[in-house]
Amino acid sequence: MSDFQILIDELVKFRDARHWDQFHNSKDLALAISIEAAELNELFLWKTVKDSEGVDKNKIKEELADIFAFALLLAEKHGFDVKEIVLEKIRKNNEKYPVEKARGTAKKYNEL
Amino acid sequence: MSDFQILIDELVKFRDARHWDQFHNSKDLALAISIEAAELNELFLWKTVKDSEGVDKNKIKEELADIFAFALLLAEKHGFDVKEIVLEKIRKNNEKYPVEKARGTAKKYNEL
Amino acid sequence: MSDFQILIDELVKFRDARHWDQFHNSKDLALAISIEAAELNELFLWKTVKDSEGVDKNKIKEELADIFAFALLLAEKHGFDVKEIVLEKIRKNNEKYPVEKARGTAKKYNEL
Amino acid sequence: MSDFQILIDELVKFRDARHWDQFHNSKDLALAISIEAAELNELFLWKTVKDSEGVDKNKIKEELADIFAFALLLAEKHGFDVKEIVLEKIRKNNEKYPVEKARGTAKKYNEL
Repeated sequence: MSDFQILIDELVKFRDARHWDQFHNSKDLALAISIEAAELNELFLWKTVKDSEGVDKNKIKEELADIFAFALLLAEKHGFDVKEIVLEKIRKNNEKYPVEKARGTAKKYNEL
Repeated sequence: MSDFQILIDELVKFRDARHWDQFHNSKDLALAISIEAAELNELFLWKTVKDSEGVDKNKIKEELADIFAFALLLAEKHGFDVKEIVLEKIRKNNEKYPVEKARGTAKKYNEL
Repeated sequence: MSDFQILIDELVKFRDARHWDQFHNSKDLALAISIEAAELNELFLWKTVKDSEGVDKNKIKEELADIFAFALLLAEKHGFDVKEIVLEKIRKNNEKYPVEKARGTAKKYNEL
Repeated sequence: MSDFQILIDELVKFRDARHWDQFHNSKDLALAISIEAAELNELFLWKTVKDSEGVDKNKIKEELADIFAFALLLAEKHGFDVKEIVLEKIRKNNEKYPVEKARGTAKKYNEL
């Protein structure tokens, strides 16, 4: 069984034991991801890039785990194969950001 | 090799071919996650929960893939084992949200 | 003096007494707005639209005040006249969303 | 009439001409604020603090105006007096962040 499936199974077990499926619609799961993302960002607020690398790793770990958890639950809801959708996105980005144009610049694809 | 490692390897290859490592500090990776999360949320904005389930699956897939991509890159930066940090978080949530108290309610753990 | 100026003056006084100007660059002020916005969103997470209207008004008030505070500080940093920039945006949206096309639909302007 | 009331009146006129009140529940207005905040943040993504100050002011202006617009509409929905809620928050923060403790540090009040 894939790692993603192992995690999804655990998350679904956790969710179903609490009867939380009723709350886990796509709109609220997406909202949950962005709220967890903001909690991750708060760790770095007002900090320089350099000081940000010194932030407590355990806190980063916890917020990142929350983001993965809700993202996996949303993927599960739609039957997405996480490995496949990420590989597909990388293929698309390979076309949107050709190496020779994108090298060393943070510009968006439509500004390259 | 784990699925996570396969994805991380592909993402790192993509990143390094473009010399983007210089932009991928923890603070900006976290910011990127929240921006992609907002793009995901935009798909559901002004929509009822019911209509949200009818949103174009391809769009959800793309935004979700972006979130996974930046989250994986941040995990890679800190050497986190994604499977392990998510399982650890589920263990913690099992304690914060005991089944008998959390069943059927969306309250936060500190309000249970 | 305009209401906006009164608030900006108070916010600047608060900031300067604490020597916080050094932290209040545009990038972090923008990040602060999005973090406060996520705290506002958290009040409504997992709630139906109907139940969302029953959320404690004092909490909404506090999170909304934080959003206004950081938005005003960012406006101040760039010397924007808040009244003017909002009126200008309404004028633009009047063109992007013509009444006869936009009435009763939540579609984005590029889908009208 | 206060500046806030002038803006709120214009925003309500714009909204009602399009029959958009039906979409503007508290939950979606809060979501709209965070989506606009993410668009503002995107202007600064991958940029240093220094380069962020060089971002096109017109773009900052537009995203900030969107944030103010949705925040004002949410304030209107709850009958909040924007000036009053921001002044009240400043008073509270004066207590949470005493000058002598908070001077020159970006720590949160519970870490001071």
